[in-house]
Amino acid sequence: MKRENEQLTRNPIVFCSLPLVNKKMKPLPFDRDFIENLSSKYPTPFYLYDERTLRQNARSFNAAFAWNAGFKEYFAVKANPNPALLKILQSENLGGDCSSLAELVICERIGITGENIMFTSNDTPAAEFVKAAELGAIINLDDITHIDFLAQSLQQIVYHSTLPELLSFRWNPGALRNVESVIGNPVEAKYGLTTEQMFEAYRIAKRRGVKRFGLHTMIASNMLDGLFFRFTAQTVFELVRKIERQTDIRIEFVNIGGGFGTAYRPEETPLDMRQVGALIYEEYEKAKMSPLKIFTESGRWIAASAGTLITRVIHRKDIYKRYVGVDACMANLMRPGMYAAYHHISVLDKETETFTRTGSISPPMETVDIVGSLCENCDKFAVDRKLPMIEIGDFLAIHDAGAHGYSMGFQYNGKLRCAELLLQEDGTVRQIRRAETLDDYFATMEWDTAG
Amino acid sequence: MKRENEQLTRNPIVFCSLPLVNKKMKPLPFDRDFIENLSSKYPTPFYLYDERTLRQNARSFNAAFAWNAGFKEYFAVKANPNPALLKILQSENLGGDCSSLAELVICERIGITGENIMFTSNDTPAAEFVKAAELGAIINLDDITHIDFLAQSLQQIVYHSTLPELLSFRWNPGALRNVESVIGNPVEAKYGLTTEQMFEAYRIAKRRGVKRFGLHTMIASNMLDGLFFRFTAQTVFELVRKIERQTDIRIEFVNIGGGFGTAYRPEETPLDMRQVGALIYEEYEKAKMSPLKIFTESGRWIAASAGTLITRVIHRKDIYKRYVGVDACMANLMRPGMYAAYHHISVLDKETETFTRTGSISPPMETVDIVGSLCENCDKFAVDRKLPMIEIGDFLAIHDAGAHGYSMGFQYNGKLRCAELLLQEDGTVRQIRRAETLDDYFATMEWDTAG
Repeated sequence: MKRENEQLTRNPIVFCSLPLVNKKMKPLPFDRDFIENLSSKYPTPFYLYDERTLRQNARSFNAAFAWNAGFKEYFAVKANPNPALLKILQSENLGGDCSSLAELVICERIGITGENIMFTSNDTPAAEFVKAAELGAIINLDDITHIDFLAQSLQQIVYHSTLPELLSFRWNPGALRNVESVIGNPVEAKYGLTTEQMFEAYRIAKRRGVKRFGLHTMIASNMLDGLFFRFTAQTVFELVRKIERQTDIRIEFVNIGGGFGTAYRPEETPLDMRQVGALIYEEYEKAKMSPLKIFTESGRWIAASAGTLITRVIHRKDIYKRYVGVDACMANLMRPGMYAAYHHISVLDKETETFTRTGSISPPMETVDIVGSLCENCDKFAVDRKLPMIEIGDFLAIHDAGAHGYSMGFQYNGKLRCAELLLQEDGTVRQIRRAETLDDYFATMEWDTAG
Repeated sequence: MKRENEQLTRNPIVFCSLPLVNKKMKPLPFDRDFIENLSSKYPTPFYLYDERTLRQNARSFNAAFAWNAGFKEYFAVKANPNPALLKILQSENLGGDCSSLAELVICERIGITGENIMFTSNDTPAAEFVKAAELGAIINLDDITHIDFLAQSLQQIVYHSTLPELLSFRWNPGALRNVESVIGNPVEAKYGLTTEQMFEAYRIAKRRGVKRFGLHTMIASNMLDGLFFRFTAQTVFELVRKIERQTDIRIEFVNIGGGFGTAYRPEETPLDMRQVGALIYEEYEKAKMSPLKIFTESGRWIAASAGTLITRVIHRKDIYKRYVGVDACMANLMRPGMYAAYHHISVLDKETETFTRTGSISPPMETVDIVGSLCENCDKFAVDRKLPMIEIGDFLAIHDAGAHGYSMGFQYNGKLRCAELLLQEDGTVRQIRRAETLDDYFATMEWDTAG
């Protein structure tokens, strides 16, 4: 490392400095100057979303399933509930996958309603079923007992026990051959109905006047192997046929859930959605499923790569290990601290390769932990990460933070959640969520009665 | 299980039903009627804190260290930042251990100021040092570079580079004999200065005009073995003596941190604070440390057992496992989902033992997962827990939730955080934090610019 530094100093004849184009880099749609300029108006940390990437992702997803007439991707609102981003996705013909009252209301407010909402919830309170029904959302039941519970809940709005015209059930496949190790054991998952209960549920629903039917399952999580989705499709198509035969109903759609993975590490091969679409198409044709509509509810694949957490280095610390302290913390992005999840980090403008008379020189590197200020030792964005030498004042870009990033943040230690900015297609930036203030944090406290 | 049920039905001669007094029970200062009545005014879920227990804990803690003239417990505000609870602790002579701007401002607002605040932070922004200094808080530096950083930060208020009269440093002991397995490896902890840096730090501070000195360390976490704190004291006292000799300063206090454990499981033996105090006293006398002041910063031991999360059962579900769905979720209490931490759960009024002619009968039991409604499979308050048979409408009390409970909650999935209530010493209840509303959740979103 030291040698490289010296070389840089000693050899004045530098031909050019270019971004390191290798497997260890992830591209960004901005550079340090752009961010430094932005930070004078919006103090770091902040999320920066790229509208172009978000739209591209949505279009790639739709293109992969263009062969299916009724295809719809319901964006998982929990991944990123920002209204401005949802508006963009709505304009790309995506619907909203909601799991709570708040998410239903967000969709309503921005004009996503009716069957453009899929309400997939579990352990659902009555009020949420009522709101979903009022919006005309597709209701996807998580349990066989919810048929009754839904009907009773809806008495509040229709004055008699009834069920919606269209109803979907979530399938939990239980023990699946050869897949437990890949996806966690569905037998331990709290979601869905057993295979046996699925048959009974459609029979009951049909008897109680439901006219249109859907089927939902979600077997994968952050899966990068396209072949897995072929397996999911195959399994679900088989079940659809069996249910249709045995209960004499027609299933209008299958929602194969999410689980479309993001390649968080630069050395990982991204999931090729065209391939996934083609594999599912093959199975669809083989099983003659037409006109069955395919629905998905991907949050991660659509939004993760469109969002970056920008943070600035405020401290360096050398003790038993070397630490770089930044102005973001777990409050802004929980995944590394909570799951030890990998997020790639770029040191802005330091990922360059310098070409000289004697060859190319990589930037000097060091191994550090990137830490936030939370009083929790797990508040580390990276552990033992090899990065270009970092100085106080440097900007770090934490990649693929557009899904399950801001939305999972907490306020532990009295930390405030940061702003969200949108880099629009025309190159301008606008704020799409303001940073929290102390007053936000104090809002529910009752000061007057203290003591 | 079934047999017990039948016995209950068949044998009509029941002498009495009494609370199950055995190792598997934790007492509560309320019963089902009380909670049912309360829930008509404050919908579940809610936190219920017991003022009597909170005060008892604070008094026991102070009593354990009554032998030390300058003893002070600085309650770790991050464990529970509710102003009403902090006011109670203040009236019991506790100070506030703060780690952020928000926590400093809370203390200021309720009148905890000056050296009643210990500011122990890491990766600290300049503004937080300024606020701490303005309040006259004891500043505890986490890194040797923070001496300069603090002095520079304070230029904002004193117009020249200077340090406070009193300064403390946080010690990270690094590799400690025989303790790595118990407390995690301090070498991997981002906190504090190395042993070598400690000596240098006091020398620099002295040279730069600091007059009074403290020393902080935090070696344990949720420790139930009293002997461990003897080890901590011994280790810290040794270091104090060495530093005093080699740097020719007098250290005024040692802050031995927190780590005083809560017996979350009913079969665990609670940490005996009297014993802890006595063990530390022995070491203190042996090493002739007088008049060294002992400070602590316990959050958990003081507050955990004083708080209960009350939630109501809204669903039961039988699939590959049996689930009980409640109206609370991870948003209210993260520890079980995030760390797989055990919290004891009581089914109100069902933990009774019935005495009959033929002997005593325990309530019929079943093994269930207690789950919330978050779209995360880890949103489980208990996994494979044996509990009295639960019906929809039952109230569950989730014990020892008074520390790191509400304060760690998030709003993932658009879930709202619940109210906090205080059961006062006179038996009345008052709300000390209102439940969040959708408007709170939407507060930072920019609706107008969406699209």
